[in-house]
Amino acid sequence: MVNTTYQVQGMTCGHCVSAVSAEVSAIAGVRDVQVDLATGRVTVGSDQPLDVESVRAAVDEAGYDLVDG
Amino acid sequence: MVNTTYQVQGMTCGHCVSAVSAEVSAIAGVRDVQVDLATGRVTVGSDQPLDVESVRAAVDEAGYDLVDG
Repeated sequence: MVNTTYQVQGMTCGHCVSAVSAEVSAIAGVRDVQVDLATGRVTVGSDQPLDVESVRAAVDEAGYDLVDG
Repeated sequence: MVNTTYQVQGMTCGHCVSAVSAEVSAIAGVRDVQVDLATGRVTVGSDQPLDVESVRAAVDEAGYDLVDG
């Protein structure tokens, strides 16, 4: 499994964490998503390396922004 | 209809607003709930004056705190 960490901005509460987790978890091949609210770090475990644009789209769908990437 | 304004603390985003709105809307006799995220003010329209404890319980259930009241 590949673990990749992304930086997300705009999350302010547990609901935000849930929304990001749900959207990123829905990406094909994603096995595990861990979100740290305090730092905005989102660590994603996947079968294969992910296209960052699919992660960006999922984060955007949840209503937040991927930083750089 | 009676309109009463309560002060809620801890809401940080639109999800918080939705959670409080949903819980307070479920109180018997409540017709309308308006939440102002910036100020934390929750204005509730109801058929009859509400028991503040029922509002406090709903806000608590959503995960937030009613200030004084």
